[in-house]
Amino acid sequence: RCYSSAAAKTLTIGLIPGDGIGKEVIPAGRQVLEALPSSYGLKFNFIDLKAGFDHFQAAGTALPEETLSALRSECQGALFGAVSSPTTKVEGYSSPIVALRKKLNLYANVRPVKSVDNGIDRPVDLVIVRENTEDLYVKEEKTFENPDGTKVAEAIKRITEVASKKIGKMAFEIALRRQALRDLGLKSIHSSPSVTITHKSNVLSLTDGLFRETIRNFYDNHLDKFESIELKEQIVDSMVYKLFREPENFDVIVGPNLYGDILSDGAAALVGSLGLIPSCNVGENFVIGEPCHGSAPDIEGQNIANPIATIRSTAMMLEFLGYDKAAAKIYEAVDANLIENKIISPDLGGTSKTTEVIEDILKRIN
Amino acid sequence: RCYSSAAAKTLTIGLIPGDGIGKEVIPAGRQVLEALPSSYGLKFNFIDLKAGFDHFQAAGTALPEETLSALRSECQGALFGAVSSPTTKVEGYSSPIVALRKKLNLYANVRPVKSVDNGIDRPVDLVIVRENTEDLYVKEEKTFENPDGTKVAEAIKRITEVASKKIGKMAFEIALRRQALRDLGLKSIHSSPSVTITHKSNVLSLTDGLFRETIRNFYDNHLDKFESIELKEQIVDSMVYKLFREPENFDVIVGPNLYGDILSDGAAALVGSLGLIPSCNVGENFVIGEPCHGSAPDIEGQNIANPIATIRSTAMMLEFLGYDKAAAKIYEAVDANLIENKIISPDLGGTSKTTEVIEDILKRIN
Ligand SMILES: CC(C)[C@H](C(=O)O)[C@@H](O)C(=O)O
Ligand SMILES: CC(C)[C@H](C(=O)O)[C@@H](O)C(=O)O
Repeated sequence: RCYSSAAAKTLTIGLIPGDGIGKEVIPAGRQVLEALPSSYGLKFNFIDLKAGFDHFQAAGTALPEETLSALRSECQGALFGAVSSPTTKVEGYSSPIVALRKKLNLYANVRPVKSVDNGIDRPVDLVIVRENTEDLYVKEEKTFENPDGTKVAEAIKRITEVASKKIGKMAFEIALRRQALRDLGLKSIHSSPSVTITHKSNVLSLTDGLFRETIRNFYDNHLDKFESIELKEQIVDSMVYKLFREPENFDVIVGPNLYGDILSDGAAALVGSLGLIPSCNVGENFVIGEPCHGSAPDIEGQNIANPIATIRSTAMMLEFLGYDKAAAKIYEAVDANLIENKIISPDLGGTSKTTEVIEDILKRIN
Repeated sequence: RCYSSAAAKTLTIGLIPGDGIGKEVIPAGRQVLEALPSSYGLKFNFIDLKAGFDHFQAAGTALPEETLSALRSECQGALFGAVSSPTTKVEGYSSPIVALRKKLNLYANVRPVKSVDNGIDRPVDLVIVRENTEDLYVKEEKTFENPDGTKVAEAIKRITEVASKKIGKMAFEIALRRQALRDLGLKSIHSSPSVTITHKSNVLSLTDGLFRETIRNFYDNHLDKFESIELKEQIVDSMVYKLFREPENFDVIVGPNLYGDILSDGAAALVGSLGLIPSCNVGENFVIGEPCHGSAPDIEGQNIANPIATIRSTAMMLEFLGYDKAAAKIYEAVDANLIENKIISPDLGGTSKTTEVIEDILKRIN
């Protein structure tokens, strides 16, 4: 038992492609894990799991019980592709990814957005840390009619001290970790680390006010640990403005669920394509890597989706499971592909196929 | 009485500078109105009115009853500067502009964002039509404690069929009007007019679903009038992404209050400065022009705020009061100043003072 760290560790990973291009990119996650040199001491089992709108239409449920129980009892982590959510109310349908985040208490959605040093992109190197279980995503909605017969609908936006504190802690820990990596000589545009709280407490003084105040209190109570990190804040509208005008001024941005959703798409626009942006849904005992892009029905089945968001999400999953070196290997392979700027999918102006981009990155991992 | 249209019409305009740079830019609105050549047949009375955080601190109310009653009984329109809203809960304080929008039922906040044809800016020519009275801005919030003593806060997001229909109608009418202006030879980047509904009904199927569905129904029921206008939609996160990647594909964007708030700051980032972006709060019987920027305490009192957002808001106020030609004169004077790109405030990279920019624009109106 004393030598267990030297033996190959086996991780069981759930693969949930979902809908649309999810089915084309999730295989990339599996392939990069399988390609990791044995020197990293990792072996993988994979379990194919169902979820999504296609499955809902075929089987009446978007998130089968078997998927949930396999994740809970057999897996250490998972990769989720995308779902094509209907925009009109479909009786009985509910987004499986929103449900997974809540049911597995994956309280943080971490979304790094980083430009590649290829002389084309504007320098961006930030992480959005999005609360992942509450806000308007509690989905407590109701409708009723006015006496005159016109309709009214209401939704609850819920913010708790408990979730705000957890996401605040995660944001500061990530800022500290980024600082440590920079201290080790990792190139970055940031000379000084910071966490920016984003909120709209000039209007929502109680809800967003609680979010803001809880994170401020957490910081004040843990100054010993986080004193090297500057605490900043931005009202969400102004945050979107500044994100585009001066992205280089942001390091870690923390926000409630909905603002995090909006800001991460906004930040993605800064670096050329949503197809590059990974995310990781992180809980105490479980992580799900998930590309930020959607199911993209317009390009489905053409083998042209960018697999990089999924490959980076796979690395993030490893990172949050504690396997930093294996994660770094994957990140570097992706960066090398992007810096070379040759075998590149159409969203980045290239002509390569999904499978060609995957092959190129696999070659750099082996 | 038959000749009344030939006589000079007198309009009474409330001036509400508010806080910070509001005090420096609102005078510009008054000056451009006074500078309008008499051939436009307009005369103006001005009433100075109080509101804002400074006033709250001095007098215990952010929106005095006298301001509200003067607007209601004496004015045809008003200009509002900015307020410095506190981000923490201040007992008894409530944002006066949010209150004015609701109390005067100014149901639409119209925010045009247009680049100037100066060879520098990326072409953008869109209007954000923001619902202005409901959504999370109903500010119905409460807090309570869990049994373990931790805090919870909730806010109501309310969407009504009545308000959604009104804002939808406004969006289509603006799209039609923009099309008519283009047909008259006005230069524009849009070959075909459109209204894009922005929402998050993949998560908020009842509230944002009602917004979306009401506007779709309105369109279907008024196809005879609006058939030349294409109806499109974008989920709000993807809307922010596309706003930055392909702004030239958007003409009129309509959204609930909060998304409209966020999107208008986002769009402002596309054209160089929030200091350029006007807005108009529009109701059945009243309009308030309002620059989109805030009170900007960091540059207060230095005579360097950009007065253009206010000057354009003044023109918008005239436009919504039915005085298109006078409005056009002001817009042209501003465009001429920007195209010349000489007497320009610091936010645009210039060195001119607020008062110098105003003078330059006044010269072009006289
Ligand atoms: C598909 C949708 C429910 C989801 C969200 O809003 O969280 C997506 O936009 C995301 O960002 O992961
Ligand atoms: C100051 C604030 C209450 C206001 C809003 O959120 O509406 C502002 O951001 C705006 O856009 O006019």
